[in-house]
Amino acid sequence: MDLMKVIHERRSIRRYKKDPIPEEIIMEILNAARVAPSWANTQVCKYIIVKDKDIKERLKEALSPTNPAREAFSQAPIVICQVAQRGVSGFKKGEPATIKGDWFMFDAGIAMEHIVLAAWNFGLGTVHVGSFDAEKAEKILNIPQGFTIVEMTPIGYFDEVPKPTPRKPLSEYIFLNTFGEPYVIE
Amino acid sequence: MDLMKVIHERRSIRRYKKDPIPEEIIMEILNAARVAPSWANTQVCKYIIVKDKDIKERLKEALSPTNPAREAFSQAPIVICQVAQRGVSGFKKGEPATIKGDWFMFDAGIAMEHIVLAAWNFGLGTVHVGSFDAEKAEKILNIPQGFTIVEMTPIGYFDEVPKPTPRKPLSEYIFLNTFGEPYVIE
Repeated sequence: MDLMKVIHERRSIRRYKKDPIPEEIIMEILNAARVAPSWANTQVCKYIIVKDKDIKERLKEALSPTNPAREAFSQAPIVICQVAQRGVSGFKKGEPATIKGDWFMFDAGIAMEHIVLAAWNFGLGTVHVGSFDAEKAEKILNIPQGFTIVEMTPIGYFDEVPKPTPRKPLSEYIFLNTFGEPYVIE
Repeated sequence: MDLMKVIHERRSIRRYKKDPIPEEIIMEILNAARVAPSWANTQVCKYIIVKDKDIKERLKEALSPTNPAREAFSQAPIVICQVAQRGVSGFKKGEPATIKGDWFMFDAGIAMEHIVLAAWNFGLGTVHVGSFDAEKAEKILNIPQGFTIVEMTPIGYFDEVPKPTPRKPLSEYIFLNTFGEPYVIE
């Protein structure tokens, strides 16, 4: 599928069909995450492909009861959990290279979006789920010391395509040369 | 261009041609960032399009002398600086919603990668530059309180396409159901 079409047509999907996902498509999607750029090619992200129904149900309990993505954890055939190693991305000789400290969140955002875009390319929906009890989810998935779960997404086929989410106009977030200076085409 | 082709063929570009970028292409690329998903659609990222030669040279001085992207700040016709508002993404009623605190880095990663992929789609190179003196760059660009520069990238046309960067094999970062359990196709 055309890149710009995927970028503009992608939606967050919260209602899934139970249909299984062919293994070769799962691999294509994870391979898209594999080639994502990262701080000094540190590649700190790992992925847990949760197919086990019981584990999916327990992960659902890590979401708050009002989270609109909760039911999706039961419906979708797979939940992908993104795990990142702390203290590596953004570090140089064990010390943070910048005032931002650990860059794992930035690298995780890039790689997870590769998954989200690649999924859409194959007709599969996802939704970035970051709001959950990470400590609870980490116990369920046996995450070792030094790693943390960043995000989870159900992944699966879907019927309904939600309407586009409204976004700020370009004029509100693009400046020329310095902050606040309107972008004027010369 | 095909999404999967862009994902796999994209490279970090550090040598640029001086050729200008047509305005309609700049707008297409920034529009790709506009539609990027973000925490509860908070859209905390803004972009400064630096065309001014003097400002580009000053930004270059915020990079360490050994940074391999330094010369690119002089060569490329434009440097895009990504700025994020702190204390909004990942927050609920003014309090962090998760133990990760501020999610601006995650949202910034997603949106910046939309720029990087969209640029490649139009034959333009970029390189994620996160390692620089952000406080110095923020003074140059008049960044107000509450905002921070996350990343910068030169953007421009290029001649040489670098070789692919080696990545870990899938087996090292994909697990089934829980951390460490090998992913076996059932």
